Amino acid sequence: MNAHSRTGAAEALSGSLPKIQEVRPGAASGIEHHEITNCRGTGAPVAVRCIDYSCDRFQVEQVTDVADFLGRHRPAWATVRWINIDGLTDMGVIRAFAEKYNLHPLAVEDVIHVPQRPKAEDYPTAEKLQARLFVVARMLSLIGDRLHTEQVSFFLGHSTLLTFQETQGDVWDTVRQRIAIAGSRLRRNDASFLLYALLDAIVDQCFPILECYSDRLEELEEIVLQNPTSDIMQRIHALKRELLLLRRGAWPMREVINSLQREPHECMSEVTRTYLRDVYDHSVQIIDLLETFRELANGLTETYMSGLSIRMNEIMKVLTIMGTIFIPLTFLAGVYGMNMKMPEYEWGGSYPVFWVVCIATAVGMLAWFKRRGWV
Amino acid sequence: MNAHSRTGAAEALSGSLPKIQEVRPGAASGIEHHEITNCRGTGAPVAVRCIDYSCDRFQVEQVTDVADFLGRHRPAWATVRWINIDGLTDMGVIRAFAEKYNLHPLAVEDVIHVPQRPKAEDYPTAEKLQARLFVVARMLSLIGDRLHTEQVSFFLGHSTLLTFQETQGDVWDTVRQRIAIAGSRLRRNDASFLLYALLDAIVDQCFPILECYSDRLEELEEIVLQNPTSDIMQRIHALKRELLLLRRGAWPMREVINSLQREPHECMSEVTRTYLRDVYDHSVQIIDLLETFRELANGLTETYMSGLSIRMNEIMKVLTIMGTIFIPLTFLAGVYGMNMKMPEYEWGGSYPVFWVVCIATAVGMLAWFKRRGWV
Amino acid sequence: MNAHSRTGAAEALSGSLPKIQEVRPGAASGIEHHEITNCRGTGAPVAVRCIDYSCDRFQVEQVTDVADFLGRHRPAWATVRWINIDGLTDMGVIRAFAEKYNLHPLAVEDVIHVPQRPKAEDYPTAEKLQARLFVVARMLSLIGDRLHTEQVSFFLGHSTLLTFQETQGDVWDTVRQRIAIAGSRLRRNDASFLLYALLDAIVDQCFPILECYSDRLEELEEIVLQNPTSDIMQRIHALKRELLLLRRGAWPMREVINSLQREPHECMSEVTRTYLRDVYDHSVQIIDLLETFRELANGLTETYMSGLSIRMNEIMKVLTIMGTIFIPLTFLAGVYGMNMKMPEYEWGGSYPVFWVVCIATAVGMLAWFKRRGWV
Amino acid sequence: MNAHSRTGAAEALSGSLPKIQEVRPGAASGIEHHEITNCRGTGAPVAVRCIDYSCDRFQVEQVTDVADFLGRHRPAWATVRWINIDGLTDMGVIRAFAEKYNLHPLAVEDVIHVPQRPKAEDYPTAEKLQARLFVVARMLSLIGDRLHTEQVSFFLGHSTLLTFQETQGDVWDTVRQRIAIAGSRLRRNDASFLLYALLDAIVDQCFPILECYSDRLEELEEIVLQNPTSDIMQRIHALKRELLLLRRGAWPMREVINSLQREPHECMSEVTRTYLRDVYDHSVQIIDLLETFRELANGLTETYMSGLSIRMNEIMKVLTIMGTIFIPLTFLAGVYGMNMKMPEYEWGGSYPVFWVVCIATAVGMLAWFKRRGWV
Amino acid sequence: MNAHSRTGAAEALSGSLPKIQEVRPGAASGIEHHEITNCRGTGAPVAVRCIDYSCDRFQVEQVTDVADFLGRHRPAWATVRWINIDGLTDMGVIRAFAEKYNLHPLAVEDVIHVPQRPKAEDYPTAEKLQARLFVVARMLSLIGDRLHTEQVSFFLGHSTLLTFQETQGDVWDTVRQRIAIAGSRLRRNDASFLLYALLDAIVDQCFPILECYSDRLEELEEIVLQNPTSDIMQRIHALKRELLLLRRGAWPMREVINSLQREPHECMSEVTRTYLRDVYDHSVQIIDLLETFRELANGLTETYMSGLSIRMNEIMKVLTIMGTIFIPLTFLAGVYGMNMKMPEYEWGGSYPVFWVVCIATAVGMLAWFKRRGWV
Repeated sequence: MNAHSRTGAAEALSGSLPKIQEVRPGAASGIEHHEITNCRGTGAPVAVRCIDYSCDRFQVEQVTDVADFLGRHRPAWATVRWINIDGLTDMGVIRAFAEKYNLHPLAVEDVIHVPQRPKAEDYPTAEKLQARLFVVARMLSLIGDRLHTEQVSFFLGHSTLLTFQETQGDVWDTVRQRIAIAGSRLRRNDASFLLYALLDAIVDQCFPILECYSDRLEELEEIVLQNPTSDIMQRIHALKRELLLLRRGAWPMREVINSLQREPHECMSEVTRTYLRDVYDHSVQIIDLLETFRELANGLTETYMSGLSIRMNEIMKVLTIMGTIFIPLTFLAGVYGMNMKMPEYEWGGSYPVFWVVCIATAVGMLAWFKRRGWV
Repeated sequence: MNAHSRTGAAEALSGSLPKIQEVRPGAASGIEHHEITNCRGTGAPVAVRCIDYSCDRFQVEQVTDVADFLGRHRPAWATVRWINIDGLTDMGVIRAFAEKYNLHPLAVEDVIHVPQRPKAEDYPTAEKLQARLFVVARMLSLIGDRLHTEQVSFFLGHSTLLTFQETQGDVWDTVRQRIAIAGSRLRRNDASFLLYALLDAIVDQCFPILECYSDRLEELEEIVLQNPTSDIMQRIHALKRELLLLRRGAWPMREVINSLQREPHECMSEVTRTYLRDVYDHSVQIIDLLETFRELANGLTETYMSGLSIRMNEIMKVLTIMGTIFIPLTFLAGVYGMNMKMPEYEWGGSYPVFWVVCIATAVGMLAWFKRRGWV
Repeated sequence: MNAHSRTGAAEALSGSLPKIQEVRPGAASGIEHHEITNCRGTGAPVAVRCIDYSCDRFQVEQVTDVADFLGRHRPAWATVRWINIDGLTDMGVIRAFAEKYNLHPLAVEDVIHVPQRPKAEDYPTAEKLQARLFVVARMLSLIGDRLHTEQVSFFLGHSTLLTFQETQGDVWDTVRQRIAIAGSRLRRNDASFLLYALLDAIVDQCFPILECYSDRLEELEEIVLQNPTSDIMQRIHALKRELLLLRRGAWPMREVINSLQREPHECMSEVTRTYLRDVYDHSVQIIDLLETFRELANGLTETYMSGLSIRMNEIMKVLTIMGTIFIPLTFLAGVYGMNMKMPEYEWGGSYPVFWVVCIATAVGMLAWFKRRGWV
Repeated sequence: MNAHSRTGAAEALSGSLPKIQEVRPGAASGIEHHEITNCRGTGAPVAVRCIDYSCDRFQVEQVTDVADFLGRHRPAWATVRWINIDGLTDMGVIRAFAEKYNLHPLAVEDVIHVPQRPKAEDYPTAEKLQARLFVVARMLSLIGDRLHTEQVSFFLGHSTLLTFQETQGDVWDTVRQRIAIAGSRLRRNDASFLLYALLDAIVDQCFPILECYSDRLEELEEIVLQNPTSDIMQRIHALKRELLLLRRGAWPMREVINSLQREPHECMSEVTRTYLRDVYDHSVQIIDLLETFRELANGLTETYMSGLSIRMNEIMKVLTIMGTIFIPLTFLAGVYGMNMKMPEYEWGGSYPVFWVVCIATAVGMLAWFKRRGWV
Repeated sequence: MNAHSRTGAAEALSGSLPKIQEVRPGAASGIEHHEITNCRGTGAPVAVRCIDYSCDRFQVEQVTDVADFLGRHRPAWATVRWINIDGLTDMGVIRAFAEKYNLHPLAVEDVIHVPQRPKAEDYPTAEKLQARLFVVARMLSLIGDRLHTEQVSFFLGHSTLLTFQETQGDVWDTVRQRIAIAGSRLRRNDASFLLYALLDAIVDQCFPILECYSDRLEELEEIVLQNPTSDIMQRIHALKRELLLLRRGAWPMREVINSLQREPHECMSEVTRTYLRDVYDHSVQIIDLLETFRELANGLTETYMSGLSIRMNEIMKVLTIMGTIFIPLTFLAGVYGMNMKMPEYEWGGSYPVFWVVCIATAVGMLAWFKRRGWV
């Protein structure tokens, strides 16, 4: 599995190793605006959607001509502007936004070179226009039975939020509905509150995913305890690997939200930070559950392996009992099948005596096994 | 096992995975007062009990008409008012209290969406009436042989304590008796001391539960060391899982009590914080015991598995000894059962010689086994 | 094993789970002086001994009438008074001391409800008479071959030290002898130095106990490496469990001594804190040794288990070699024992040829085993 | 394998233990300039290359006469001078640079005695000329299929960077190309930015190496799950050992970069420290991946071992079923091959009855196995 | 193994448990000067050597009459005096130095009661003469193939260093040679630099010891992977135990050097602290290597155990294949050896048919095994 075969936009965690970002070692880190080139195929179109809102007005625009859009002023009544860019394939669009909002080269690089570890960074500059706070998050969702993961990058300015997603489709539909409701808490607050709402949606999306793992864990446990099949170990292995990868994403998410909630930042309102405590609690709960699941899965392996040993013991006991009883008797029968001259052949009572000896031996053996607790 | 089948109010920890709170991802976090709707069945009635007391007076009121109750002023003599709400099914009641005491939306959400991780939060506002300190705790109790767990939420104001329980029935009867005793330490102190007394009752309730696990552990140990049965591994597995879940609840409880005891808060008196040190000591002791139990349970598994191996070794030894002695002899007997012409058949002494050879071989084998320490 | 069967004063750690303190959940924490009732049997008498000393005078009093003793003033020349109470059975005596020295209710509770986790607490009050610093320690001693553990509680005032022991008999005889020596370092120092000397005696008592475990570990190691018996695993299990319980006591002791040594306290002299560093070093050394012993015991288990596997491999090899050589030969012998008409029966040379085939097969098999490294 | 056989300049991590630096215990630490002697063979020549650049000018010099080079002044227009020394065999060259730039004796010792643990040290002195910041890093690269590791030492002054490599050949070719581009970010910045660029190249070089391990891990996983070969365990063992050694290098690298990024230093510009955050993120990601790989490799071992046990169980089941069915029947056949007088021989129907008994026994046995879940 | 049998001065770590210091519990800690008695045999003589040096003068004196020596003044030109006492058997000598240099009783106790955990302590007093800084270190050396360990105690004053060793012979010969060189760095610096040089020699002595363990590890690895012998497990066990004991000594050494290097102390010069950073780096490297070795040894055990399992599987496969093929055939041969009347005996073609059946069965079985991957 090399880097190129893994460049599908939404990667299924199930059954694959963690993606590794592609870097050209020694190449300049940080992508200057003029260096943004169309290094990826431009097949998939990029969808740009701009939502402007204030407490009492609200307007959605599906941007088709980016240059024209960036040339226009934002409506004076809008307190918050949210621009969402779906798809990282058209570098021209990304360059236009990077120039307009003066995005930092290192941040632009992190947007383009996915996957990055979730993080929150502050790029201070003197200029007003620049989006100051840069956040990278990992958005998980279940599509059918498969887990899809996608990087989302946020640039938060004083009244603007830019979001870049790898592909179309996200977990924010309910947030958009809430924006559409006049006077809702979202509409009454600033851009940082919108950032909070989006992060909250991403984190809360993990609960149904955990439900799904909880179900699988329970099913596996039932199988292990009642009727272990031979592929169970591979299923536990797969589950553990997925939990490991999930956890690898969950820990840095927790750190990001914790740093956002703890460190005051010019673009973050007090209200937002109070609400982020709630997201933080949820992310702690998710890690807690993940760790519990991992320990349960480990316990399952252990229980399964000990079940195997118990079963093996039983199998060997049966073989040993059968063998130990019949091997000497077979020998005896063999002896009296010999074609030598024996006194026993002459004596008429030897056949009944043979059977008596056989039965006595078997019973004695069984008694001895019983005493050892084998029967 | 999906979320819905687990909404029974009291969940038995035994034999089930940790409950996961139900969230609608992307929905607004924090429940505004007007948003509290009757989202749950209203079958079970909600019991509201208000206890007012000062050092020398004391009065209990079983509230039936919540609106009327909240409209009345509290008696002037009362230094502390404790309102306990049993049941989260009637949203009208919760909304009434949330409005009256100006509870923070995020706190109300945590009350309704159980289970939350135990935590202590401070929601500062300018208004006087608001209950300031919000505490979520987990109340464990043994009903018969099963462990029941329930979330309790506390709102502490300057002279008021609100408690929300999931179901009726709790571990606070002795606390209520102590309130009824004029001049008791509880009556002489403020509302934060009542919070302490309730938390103390919740934490101390763990000791009899640990007693019960200690008994199970001892029983299992006796079985493992003396007479292992085949379902022992499943019983150890169950015990370990329950200890894991208990521990998952105990750690955040310890953190909560530690933060309450350490950080000064306007609503917490000095006396209360001194007494909370005692609760903290107990919670540390509980975690200590839990960890010791977990290590003992792990040691038990290990000992059991090694016992299996020892047993297997013995079984195989017996089979090998029997097989190794009789397999060559059986071959020999087979040879002399052949219908070929052999000189041995002619010679009269061959039968006694055969027996001598057999016995010599067996004795030689046994001597060799003895030297290897197998017999 | 329930709490009541474990109330023997000195509990043998060997072969038993950790003791759990008895609490009545919901009951008031902290025992007010008037609440101290004779809740335990008063069978065993309580021995109270008071030692007064200054640098040049010294006097021991075996107290029989507690009330009279507490009524008298202490001699003016005495710089330090040490009152030792052996036995927690007579609540009247405990109440008398609690009232006289104004002991904090929570501390009194910890004295009576054994076992507590070792701890050091400061109960600040305005009153002069009160013993300020409260320390709980765990005293271990070897009585014959068994480990006895007992809780000791210390109340340190400016010139007074109160000690409560569960039973008579302690590890402090040499300390008492040193007090009797005029001008000894103990006599020249204050009450906190006496506390140090007593804690030092308790901690140093662990070294001979560790010697004893070191001997057991060595014995077990010799057995495992040279001549494993079948009960070895149970002995290792027992050793590991005892080390686990010892360690459970050692860690909080270390914390207690560390906090005493680090945090300045009005009742602790500088000299005492310098000497406590030595006790702290010893407690660190003890934990170090315990952890090393635990790792060695774990390594022992592993080595034993691998020894079992090696042995099993050898056993199976022998069986397989025997079986593999003789099973085909036995078949061959069986064939020529058949009562069918065969050309071989006619031919005279078939018997020698049979033996040649048998020996050739056996030799060929052995050569093959040799090549695989089985013989 | 002693130290001398391992002094090859580039050590292949694969299949070898960590290199240990050679020290003469008791010898003076820190190598004074006059003590630098030609303690190593001088076979391999040392290549010295000096690059001077400013924003608009740029010049490379391949130094052949070191003394002459160090005697000349640097061009006035050069804002940054980077001197790279490839090879540690010619002590005369090292001594010349140590004297010229007044390198600290302890730093010189660390340059010569490889391998050192990666570290960043500041040697403050009064003199202007001295290179102040000393950084040791570990450069990994893949040459064909083998991993090569080499120590790189950096001395950073105000406008000078000295780098010492163990051998020729490095991962910095793209950095040199970027220096050659007039106006590039590298050319516009100071010497510390060059240090950043070189460290960035070293850290980014790990990603393709991790790719390679990811591929091996995946291949091993496929083998384990589908068709385990007998050398798989050795291959997993080798992989785990290499990951262990990689991780041993990665952790101190992370610490070094973290300390460079966090602690302000006179020679480090603000811009460089901002960019170092990016290198730090990458080093955290690398450690993250390494730990994930290690856990996956551990899981692989576990899965493989459990696969073995399952296979063993199956093998034993087959043997037991065959044995248990045929051993009693063989005994029976043996009985009727005896040469005694038996009533059964007389009766004509005994042969069919024999077969009926045999088939009935076999069918009964199989039914019993079926019930136990063995068939 | 009790304490007395282990009092040999140099203890071989190989094959023995950690030494435990001998204490008389309850006895006074700290040994006053007049209490130092000749508690040990005085058989071995004590060697005292005094070295005085300044930058340009230097003088060694082998002290025979301690009283006389301590009575004389030190030469005025001497900037540093180093007194080394070899052997702890003559308490008179120790008492003389303790009185002369006013050593703290607790420090004297630590010198005499070996082994102590490595530590650095400061005993502040008003008196000028007293040696202020007390350091305990553990000196390891290889004598032939065995590891010897010995406690070294240092007392550092402003211009004096006292060192106490358990036995004669140490790792400081090269240090003494460096002192003899006029103008060497040692001669130019103060007493704390001498302390540094001695500690550096002790720490660097660990590298050849680690080399030796590296060789053993490699040898064991080769054996495990290529040709496992039956005592391999015991050798790995021994290696792991020794690494455990080494590590037990290495961690506190690191702490000691770290605290010396970090905390400014009146007797330590700035230069010394800069050089101690180098010793600290080495001690970190040693711990790093030890941990790596421990992990490698653990990996070795695991690989060995899995190798055993693989071998067992193969053995069982062979037995099962042989058994499964021949057991039914032997039964068949047994049947036709019965002395009943059978139609098959009459028919002439039964013998060839028998062989056809046998061969067909065997081939069928082998095909089935092939399909299962057993052959």
